[in-house]
Amino acid sequence: MMPRYRLLIEYDGRPFNGFQAQDGLPTIQGAIERAVKAFCGEDLRLQAAGRTDTGVHARGQVVHVDLAKDWPAETVRNALNAHLVPQPIAVLEASVAPEGWHARFSAKERRYLYRILNRMAPPALDQGRVWHVKKPLDAEAMHEAAQALVGHHDFTTFRDLGCQAKSPMKTLDLASVRREGDEVLLEFASRSFLHRQVRSMTGTLAEVGVGRWTRADLVAALEARDRRACGPVAPAEGLYLTGVAY
Amino acid sequence: MMPRYRLLIEYDGRPFNGFQAQDGLPTIQGAIERAVKAFCGEDLRLQAAGRTDTGVHARGQVVHVDLAKDWPAETVRNALNAHLVPQPIAVLEASVAPEGWHARFSAKERRYLYRILNRMAPPALDQGRVWHVKKPLDAEAMHEAAQALVGHHDFTTFRDLGCQAKSPMKTLDLASVRREGDEVLLEFASRSFLHRQVRSMTGTLAEVGVGRWTRADLVAALEARDRRACGPVAPAEGLYLTGVAY
Repeated sequence: MMPRYRLLIEYDGRPFNGFQAQDGLPTIQGAIERAVKAFCGEDLRLQAAGRTDTGVHARGQVVHVDLAKDWPAETVRNALNAHLVPQPIAVLEASVAPEGWHARFSAKERRYLYRILNRMAPPALDQGRVWHVKKPLDAEAMHEAAQALVGHHDFTTFRDLGCQAKSPMKTLDLASVRREGDEVLLEFASRSFLHRQVRSMTGTLAEVGVGRWTRADLVAALEARDRRACGPVAPAEGLYLTGVAY
Repeated sequence: MMPRYRLLIEYDGRPFNGFQAQDGLPTIQGAIERAVKAFCGEDLRLQAAGRTDTGVHARGQVVHVDLAKDWPAETVRNALNAHLVPQPIAVLEASVAPEGWHARFSAKERRYLYRILNRMAPPALDQGRVWHVKKPLDAEAMHEAAQALVGHHDFTTFRDLGCQAKSPMKTLDLASVRREGDEVLLEFASRSFLHRQVRSMTGTLAEVGVGRWTRADLVAALEARDRRACGPVAPAEGLYLTGVAY
């Protein structure tokens, strides 16, 4: 049997046209598949826990590859990293997956972090890694409002019109907002998310943060089950896929 | 009297040939001076608390500029930031300095952070922002050894041969090493540092961290007062000027 390798991946989303392979465009999937080919000569498609959009980062993406040969896991990690350099993609860990395990279908929870830099000055060290919001945000009000999103809901309001999921029903397990110095950090966890759900929720919560929306406005938007009720969608650059639980 | 503005500056050192202005090369000083010129038409030289080397970053550099006109401090900050974009330099704060205050000569303490990424996988999100060390580092042993450097010493061993300071005598107020996840973070504070002193101390402490040097070896190197006794010099990319106290 071909061994299946589980890979924990970190990447900077800036130079890529998103995760998913596209002909002629730089993508994270394409870069990893080319590294696999360079390592062992195999042309294969990898499977990933989450397909992140253009400009979205990851500290804990999980993918799997089925290789023809039984390599030591550290060899797979080190060889792929050697072939990925200097692209900003790194294989943090590699391990042989248990029988029947699948990076996408076995995932029980995805976790995302959204970083807002909330100060007058633009980012210097964190260009392309944070959403810059100049108006002061009330992180406590955002946290309080975010609790209205937790639970099993129809998230049509917070779903991109191009989303291909069969159902808009999702269960949000965690929505947390806190301030750390100049940054407002939002964390979300769910078995799975709709397309642009995290960025749609974040942009709408920022409206609460600046005082333009109340918690009641957010609840009404959720209950509207209408994309037009969503606030502005936060940009990709502040979003990180931080982990996947199995 | 011309008002003196104190500016708190953040920058990513990667695209610059260091802080100090040099003809025909991109430098942080040159970029800020050009932004001042674009803002108010004045050709002036700024003064800085520390002149960082090529590739060194800052979260808390302090500089001053003497402007001909009495601008509101927020106007100075916002206008300079508008002219600095898209360069990775930001003015975090601007204020009118007290009489006689000087960014360089009034400084009582400089503080630096050195970030080591200590894992097998290379940095992806932090390319150019950390020193990548694959061998496991014993941060506690490094911290313990670092205490031998604290105090008033002749730091000739940890001083670049091109250093122009009159005396190699310096008082190191703080040397702290701790692990945070995959990172080993070193913090140093002193009234002033010799050229490449932080990187020289860091590279030598890393030798202790991997077990090649003992604390006694570090003490012997310090006491040798000889540049040839220094360990390898850590690269610029992990170094941050984090703050200046007055």
